[in-house]
Amino acid sequence: MVTKEHIIAELKALQDRICDSLEELDGEGRFEQDLWERPGGGGGRTRIITGKHIEKGGVNFSAVGGNMPEKIYKSIGIGPNRFVATGVSIVLHPVNPHVPIIHMNVRYFETDNGLWWFGGGIDLTPHYVDPNLATSFHTSLKEACDKHDSSFYPEFKRWADDYFYVRHRKETRGIGGIFFDRLDKSRGSKAEMLSYILEVGNAFIPIYKKQFLDNYQVQYSDREKEWQLHRRGRYVEFNLVWDRGTKFGLDTDGNIESILMSLPPITKWSYKYAPNEREQETLAYLVKDYNWID
Amino acid sequence: MVTKEHIIAELKALQDRICDSLEELDGEGRFEQDLWERPGGGGGRTRIITGKHIEKGGVNFSAVGGNMPEKIYKSIGIGPNRFVATGVSIVLHPVNPHVPIIHMNVRYFETDNGLWWFGGGIDLTPHYVDPNLATSFHTSLKEACDKHDSSFYPEFKRWADDYFYVRHRKETRGIGGIFFDRLDKSRGSKAEMLSYILEVGNAFIPIYKKQFLDNYQVQYSDREKEWQLHRRGRYVEFNLVWDRGTKFGLDTDGNIESILMSLPPITKWSYKYAPNEREQETLAYLVKDYNWID
Repeated sequence: MVTKEHIIAELKALQDRICDSLEELDGEGRFEQDLWERPGGGGGRTRIITGKHIEKGGVNFSAVGGNMPEKIYKSIGIGPNRFVATGVSIVLHPVNPHVPIIHMNVRYFETDNGLWWFGGGIDLTPHYVDPNLATSFHTSLKEACDKHDSSFYPEFKRWADDYFYVRHRKETRGIGGIFFDRLDKSRGSKAEMLSYILEVGNAFIPIYKKQFLDNYQVQYSDREKEWQLHRRGRYVEFNLVWDRGTKFGLDTDGNIESILMSLPPITKWSYKYAPNEREQETLAYLVKDYNWID
Repeated sequence: MVTKEHIIAELKALQDRICDSLEELDGEGRFEQDLWERPGGGGGRTRIITGKHIEKGGVNFSAVGGNMPEKIYKSIGIGPNRFVATGVSIVLHPVNPHVPIIHMNVRYFETDNGLWWFGGGIDLTPHYVDPNLATSFHTSLKEACDKHDSSFYPEFKRWADDYFYVRHRKETRGIGGIFFDRLDKSRGSKAEMLSYILEVGNAFIPIYKKQFLDNYQVQYSDREKEWQLHRRGRYVEFNLVWDRGTKFGLDTDGNIESILMSLPPITKWSYKYAPNEREQETLAYLVKDYNWID
């Protein structure tokens, strides 16, 4: 039987492996760990890196639980209960504008009256879209998904397009990826679903390594850095206006600093920033339902 | 009789006067005007300045109207109608961290079935709170309010404390000011209410001049600029997460660039930014119900 303790241990180990690999990749930065406790029960390990190539990165583990706040159980449509919610969340903002922003999250939720589900996803936000790297990214996600269920990639790819959408700008946050939620017994056993989210979690490092190594040493101009800072503005707009996870955390008195670690280290907004030709090429890719694999 | 044409003309003239005064104050920057039209009817004059002392400022006039979108009339709780909404909105982000961010808005709304009301407010967000300047700010607001109704300042000051509240940070956006909405015939005649919001509009320049001239030439350190960039982060958090005006604009397909002109030119977020003693002094003032006038 897959216990919550087992899942928590797996997620902690995943956080450890990812942090080790990212320190190696950056070559200089070291994660600083901030342990925190939740007044109602549980806590987390927030880990932040300020590196040579990773300008700001967060790799957070948390496992909270206890009596479920009324606001939450009502929003799920269930009665009072005790719950556990655990997960690993990552956002990396690179120094080099030719390296994409990446986000990953895998999570598990259960209540003491028998409900359980998994959720998560990975999505990529290149400041400049390179079609080959975008195809490589989606191909890796498809491979990870296909090991479990060949319907997952197409379904979760569409879900990501819908979820990571900056509605007021009419553009996707980046080139999407996969997003999934409430994977419960209708999808398979708890052991099978755990194995799937660990597959996704373990795919993170090889996927990011490819994106990172291809471009982290590429020279960039002031204009390219400027464009990156403005694209980060869109990232902020998505996270603060549309991201349901962030909204939920802010509404329910979550660990604010840990939730908002996703915000970029430095960001710019200019009135009607005028994209040049190269930048317009990227914008043209920021649409839903773009098929990156054929 | 006070017509909507008259109110629109008064608001345009207010925008002109404020832009002229701000150019004079900055000494170097000039507003660039962007005229826009709303597909459903009406349009606006967005004016943006990038100056020597005003790092980024917007002084926007708009007057939109036509058939009211269903989403809007339902949210107000009325039936289909034709409407006019007009107003002037200002946000100024200064270069010098010792000069506060200021926001002002005055607006008028009417429907063709006889509803009308005015709204608006002014609030101040000092990066460093100077108690004397804060008292001077609130005293000027009280004077403007008292010319019309001695109950306005206390009521609208409390309203501002509640409105400009960054709930997830448990701090006010700045030292507040006044905020009011739906000032209708229960408050006085249309002429009286127009006269009140023009009083507020006309108070803006003397009020900002005082805040600006006292500190715009004060030397500041890198650390002080750094603190300013982090405080701007809170300004972004308020505007994107909690500001109902911004939310309404983003939800209803408003003029996005014009709405988001309020966002700072450059902003920083660091994990658990540690305030020094001087910065902590400012944070201690960012609470509701602080009485700045005795």
